[in-house]
Amino acid sequence: MITSSTDPQPADFADVRATNLAVVLRFVREHAPCSRADIAASTGLNKATVSSLVADLIDRRLVRETGLTENRVGRPATMLVLDGSPYAAIGLEINVDYVTAVAVDLAGERLLSWRRAFPGSVAAVAAIVRRVVNRMAKEDKQILGLTVAVPGLVDGQGVVRVAPNLGWLDTDVSGDLAKALRDPGFPIQADNDANLGALAEHRFGPHGAVSDLVYLTGELGVGAGVILDGRLRRGGRGYSGEIGHIQIDPQGPQCRCGRIGCLEAVAGIGAVLEHASPSPVEVELEIEEVVRRARAGDARTLALLGGVGRDLGRGVAILANLLNPQVVILGGYYVPLAPWLLPAVEAEVRERTIAPEAGGCQVVMSSLGYDAAALGGAARVLDSVDSGRLPRIS
Amino acid sequence: MITSSTDPQPADFADVRATNLAVVLRFVREHAPCSRADIAASTGLNKATVSSLVADLIDRRLVRETGLTENRVGRPATMLVLDGSPYAAIGLEINVDYVTAVAVDLAGERLLSWRRAFPGSVAAVAAIVRRVVNRMAKEDKQILGLTVAVPGLVDGQGVVRVAPNLGWLDTDVSGDLAKALRDPGFPIQADNDANLGALAEHRFGPHGAVSDLVYLTGELGVGAGVILDGRLRRGGRGYSGEIGHIQIDPQGPQCRCGRIGCLEAVAGIGAVLEHASPSPVEVELEIEEVVRRARAGDARTLALLGGVGRDLGRGVAILANLLNPQVVILGGYYVPLAPWLLPAVEAEVRERTIAPEAGGCQVVMSSLGYDAAALGGAARVLDSVDSGRLPRIS
Repeated sequence: MITSSTDPQPADFADVRATNLAVVLRFVREHAPCSRADIAASTGLNKATVSSLVADLIDRRLVRETGLTENRVGRPATMLVLDGSPYAAIGLEINVDYVTAVAVDLAGERLLSWRRAFPGSVAAVAAIVRRVVNRMAKEDKQILGLTVAVPGLVDGQGVVRVAPNLGWLDTDVSGDLAKALRDPGFPIQADNDANLGALAEHRFGPHGAVSDLVYLTGELGVGAGVILDGRLRRGGRGYSGEIGHIQIDPQGPQCRCGRIGCLEAVAGIGAVLEHASPSPVEVELEIEEVVRRARAGDARTLALLGGVGRDLGRGVAILANLLNPQVVILGGYYVPLAPWLLPAVEAEVRERTIAPEAGGCQVVMSSLGYDAAALGGAARVLDSVDSGRLPRIS
Repeated sequence: MITSSTDPQPADFADVRATNLAVVLRFVREHAPCSRADIAASTGLNKATVSSLVADLIDRRLVRETGLTENRVGRPATMLVLDGSPYAAIGLEINVDYVTAVAVDLAGERLLSWRRAFPGSVAAVAAIVRRVVNRMAKEDKQILGLTVAVPGLVDGQGVVRVAPNLGWLDTDVSGDLAKALRDPGFPIQADNDANLGALAEHRFGPHGAVSDLVYLTGELGVGAGVILDGRLRRGGRGYSGEIGHIQIDPQGPQCRCGRIGCLEAVAGIGAVLEHASPSPVEVELEIEEVVRRARAGDARTLALLGGVGRDLGRGVAILANLLNPQVVILGGYYVPLAPWLLPAVEAEVRERTIAPEAGGCQVVMSSLGYDAAALGGAARVLDSVDSGRLPRIS
């Protein structure tokens, strides 16, 4: 039986069948290949019910039978796997210096991955989305939804309240996109980039089994996506994870927000760049140059990265003390700089965490790279399928 | 229907009846006085099932009928309320300078509340528990369980890994207590004092409807209990909430943990006391003296409290940025000092939080006072009843 740690639920649901379809779909996603008997044994649903639910999921092309069978006493069992090939979930990240678009199918297989310099306007972003939609149409994919990742405070209604590094205030980016796309026929949502990075790591990364995880964006801004007990925790108004403006060094430089010594000011990617305000397209090139100099053993570069690593470690130690995550994942531009940042980060975290062995907190680099937030956008669309909003094949 | 935001559950439970008993009990606790028809309408359970479940709960003396009726078309409905008077849940807090014991019935009515200087040994604590148990026996109460609150890191098995201010290391306080009590016939658990303070506020305080809440202990140590989406979040190993050793001021004094400028060192209660290491019994008296001087307008005292309030505000701003709680509750010795601490705390939080209006975060004083952690111990016992472990009347 699938159990959870939440309050007990009454046992006769208004919509038993929809709930059970989602339960079976989730089971197949997590345990494929598996047989109908496996599903019955693990969910507590009876075999006739499972057969009927599986037939429905096969009709919707969410699940398919494989040629494989399982050897059992009696009849061999046909094995099931996730299908979902007719469907696509789209994620889009808008950041200061780039736009990333990804599309995945229901099984998380990558259908498309694009990265472009940020064109500066929602209308131009809509043009990118239109091209993604056209590509998916050509491949006969039904689009389940689109989530836009933004580096800023996104409220419960999906409105971007403040995105300081984009200069956005009270921007309904999902509404604006829907309008520019003239009612595209699929839902559009917006969410914080760090939240979506955490969702992506939890669904597609190697730490999916971990229940307490924090994802840190390593961009010009720094944000945290907080997963505790297996779920993203957004806080009262949806503004959790704003680690970028916690003061790390009262003697430090002024942050773009006006405060002094914020994590973002001392350990954001801007702190390792030559130019205080690099032009957007230059960031990636500048990071490559820093990596080249570090590889060559340039003393000034190594000292700079060591200092940034220490300050970043002070931020991660706050997470380790306060949230006791099993894993903190460094994303974005931190990934190419990892070999030089990680030792200093780890030393600070061990030193500054009151729990023995930093409470078991590991600091690792994202394996999803620059696509993490966009992938998280797609993950959020797939999550809504998992929680019972099943598509009908059109 | 009672819903939750977690993954869908299969609809035929192995133990439907136990689950539904807990659902009905919880409904009555939250909505009493209510009728059987109210329960059926809200939970989605059918009326015959509700009648049978209510009869069972009445047999167990968990629910009782009142004389009240509700005017309806047709037969007047008998109203139900929580009973639970034959049961007691015990909470015990062991802190550096005192031991607090409370007992409550199932409805949260206070049966007993004691506060003593900490006698220094688990054997002496056991003697206090024995007296509580005897008192409950005299009042014909069946004891559901006991939770011990400790200011330290408590792991998933309930072992106190480190309690620096008590000088404890790897102490199985619940096991030791059970042995000293010679198998008392009820379960004994241990938990972190801040976690239990948060549980108490969530169950008994005026902020029970709030889903994102942080409780801060104001003792010689400072810890945080973190409730997000309505549940205590313990982190990977159970060590969440260790805000006391986050560095607030790199130029600050050395903390007892050896680190520099920890929140505990700059804004723990020790920072407002005359004596660096007051003897345990003196703490309460010294705080009274500080309050007396502040009331008299003593400039040095007011400056001291203003500074502590500012440093505490820097800690609360970390919470507001990272977790976006609706409420941060200051407990323990912060309560009597509230009138002088709060203005500085609030100003810092507004100043240092990136979200507008501090993300909606309110800073308030605990209304549970010195009993909060012990009450939380009792709340944890009651939580296990809520989640389906129903007592049988013996």
